[in-house]
Amino acid sequence: MEFSKITKSMKTSEIREILKLIENPEIISFAGGLPAPELFPKDEIISLTAEIINIEGNEALQYGTTEGYNPLRKAILEQRLIPFGMKGSIDNLLITSGSQQGLDFSGRLFIDEDDIIIVEKPSYLGAINAFRTYGAKFVEIPMDQDGMIVEELEKALNLYPKAKFIYTIPDFHNPTGITMSIERRKKLAEIANIYKIPILEDSPYGELVLEGERLPTIKSFDTDGYVIYFGTFSKTFCPGLRLGYIFADENVINKYVTLKQSSDLQCSSLDQRILAYYLNNYDLDKHINKIKQVYRKRRDLMFECMDKWLPKEIEYTRSRGGLFTWLKLREDMDTVKLLEEALKFNVAFVPGGSFFANGGVKNYLRLNYSNMPEERIVEGTKRLCELLQNYY
Amino acid sequence: MEFSKITKSMKTSEIREILKLIENPEIISFAGGLPAPELFPKDEIISLTAEIINIEGNEALQYGTTEGYNPLRKAILEQRLIPFGMKGSIDNLLITSGSQQGLDFSGRLFIDEDDIIIVEKPSYLGAINAFRTYGAKFVEIPMDQDGMIVEELEKALNLYPKAKFIYTIPDFHNPTGITMSIERRKKLAEIANIYKIPILEDSPYGELVLEGERLPTIKSFDTDGYVIYFGTFSKTFCPGLRLGYIFADENVINKYVTLKQSSDLQCSSLDQRILAYYLNNYDLDKHINKIKQVYRKRRDLMFECMDKWLPKEIEYTRSRGGLFTWLKLREDMDTVKLLEEALKFNVAFVPGGSFFANGGVKNYLRLNYSNMPEERIVEGTKRLCELLQNYY
Repeated sequence: MEFSKITKSMKTSEIREILKLIENPEIISFAGGLPAPELFPKDEIISLTAEIINIEGNEALQYGTTEGYNPLRKAILEQRLIPFGMKGSIDNLLITSGSQQGLDFSGRLFIDEDDIIIVEKPSYLGAINAFRTYGAKFVEIPMDQDGMIVEELEKALNLYPKAKFIYTIPDFHNPTGITMSIERRKKLAEIANIYKIPILEDSPYGELVLEGERLPTIKSFDTDGYVIYFGTFSKTFCPGLRLGYIFADENVINKYVTLKQSSDLQCSSLDQRILAYYLNNYDLDKHINKIKQVYRKRRDLMFECMDKWLPKEIEYTRSRGGLFTWLKLREDMDTVKLLEEALKFNVAFVPGGSFFANGGVKNYLRLNYSNMPEERIVEGTKRLCELLQNYY
Repeated sequence: MEFSKITKSMKTSEIREILKLIENPEIISFAGGLPAPELFPKDEIISLTAEIINIEGNEALQYGTTEGYNPLRKAILEQRLIPFGMKGSIDNLLITSGSQQGLDFSGRLFIDEDDIIIVEKPSYLGAINAFRTYGAKFVEIPMDQDGMIVEELEKALNLYPKAKFIYTIPDFHNPTGITMSIERRKKLAEIANIYKIPILEDSPYGELVLEGERLPTIKSFDTDGYVIYFGTFSKTFCPGLRLGYIFADENVINKYVTLKQSSDLQCSSLDQRILAYYLNNYDLDKHINKIKQVYRKRRDLMFECMDKWLPKEIEYTRSRGGLFTWLKLREDMDTVKLLEEALKFNVAFVPGGSFFANGGVKNYLRLNYSNMPEERIVEGTKRLCELLQNYY
């Protein structure tokens, strides 16, 4: 068989292969981006499913519109967007199969082979992989503790005026855990207008604020429709239903809708209703507060353990929200090799290399603190720190 | 914003715009491809959802593997594939968001811009649109009452030796309702081996046999792994859960899995379990028999009405299964214009033009007989026939 050029260049990630080993339940895994499952609203979902099918009957199982179930679009708009300063109507919203599908569609919508796109250094590997599928070339913008450095971004935009879009994760960045400052958010919205370049604002963790206030989104500063905002319920409700959304200018949303139509027609009619009924019958904010309490405790515990046992030379992000922290090791260290060693002690993390779109960086690692119960956080962090002490 | 080349060439279909009008419930619509919703197993889904969440707990709402929920893959293999002569293991199966997603992925897996692919004349418009998104050029193979004419196919393969794949709907073809003969199925499997070209066998209606026996799939004659089989539960269970599958050689499936990973990670964990539990706790064959009884009645009624009232010059397919029949009108007639007229009498169909990948044909129309209750089938067919009588 003769595949397409892109397919021929696809490879399975070495990390994915390593991560398969982690399915062993003895391993204390800080690797995944999994939310804590014990918080999923199971009973509510059981009773809502019965209610939905009893009330809506066949409609709940029939084909629906590509744009999404209207009461869900309305609830997202009114509950998750407008209160956070974003303006629009349900015509600005498309329901997607997680925000991953929105990122993948963005690749198809914008990228021709060898087009340049701009990402943070490092950036979310699922986005990098999706964009790479369309033949993108990456320009990486360095970050500091306030997020993407905008001076570097402007340099890049002047150097590459044909860049197709800027992809950013301003809230509790994956993998670094960094929060972009409010000044930079404003500046990014301005830059989009000046350079007439779309900004893809990916915010899967924005609502998981563990410290301080939630900062306004870049989208809330958008005046000319250049910001495309991606949200998801994978971290605040549950990931198994695969529900996310794109919020953007109506002209842009219409293009995403056309793509979704030929890609998979629509998201699950039942799952969309489960979420819509949940949003309209329960208090998601209250539920998120419960999640945050648990994650805050786990995060604090991991940070405490690292402060106690981690070699002082190693820097890590004191993330103010989200699921991750990010460790910088000595420059000569390779965290893929370190993972192999760590697995001997039944502890796992994600090596940082794959988060660098153009590769070449090996001395970082990402830790997740949301998925493991407290005693395993202590034990796992201890094992990892002890392993690292051998190198310092 | 500067979109990709493909995006710039996208247009909204004129038909989609017309079909929006059909949402009016007064209209008797033979337009959609919708299954009859009154047959959806609603009570079973309510009780299964409770059972699933009670038994599997958090797992049912958490992230799962990209390949799909293993008990679902196993049930599909054992219940829907092996009994129909197809051989393999669950490693040959990927769960997709309806078979539409499988078709879309096939476009990305095989098609570079301007690549040639081979389709029936006419063919399913959702597939045509998905392939077109990747810049495909189409070679159309004429059909007769036994399906794609293989002599014409071989001519095309000799003329276009670089063609990337052959796309076919052998069972109760959409839109024509035609069933491919067993000899041609065998011949297609041979051709795939000789020309080393993949065959995409799309069979959304294969299990909806209304007359005679189910014919063996092309895949069941596949010896060298060139046939990629697409199945779905949209017509036999319910479309709202968006569950289909790809069944193919393991090397090929692995490439589809890599694509799914970057596209949307996985299908709904809950919906996959609902279907798996249904397959393992109820009798889908019995359920399909119920569906077939209803559709058979509706089909027979529509055919009776057409035999009574349709101008004798108009040919239509006496479909032996599936959801559709296909009418050939006088060559100077344009069914897009006819639809506008029909809507004045509150009856709708799909004009046939969009099913021709290279356009240029206007005098066909597709009727669906599965979605309307019997009295509306009589009334709607009568109105349509009366309208057509004005032209003959």
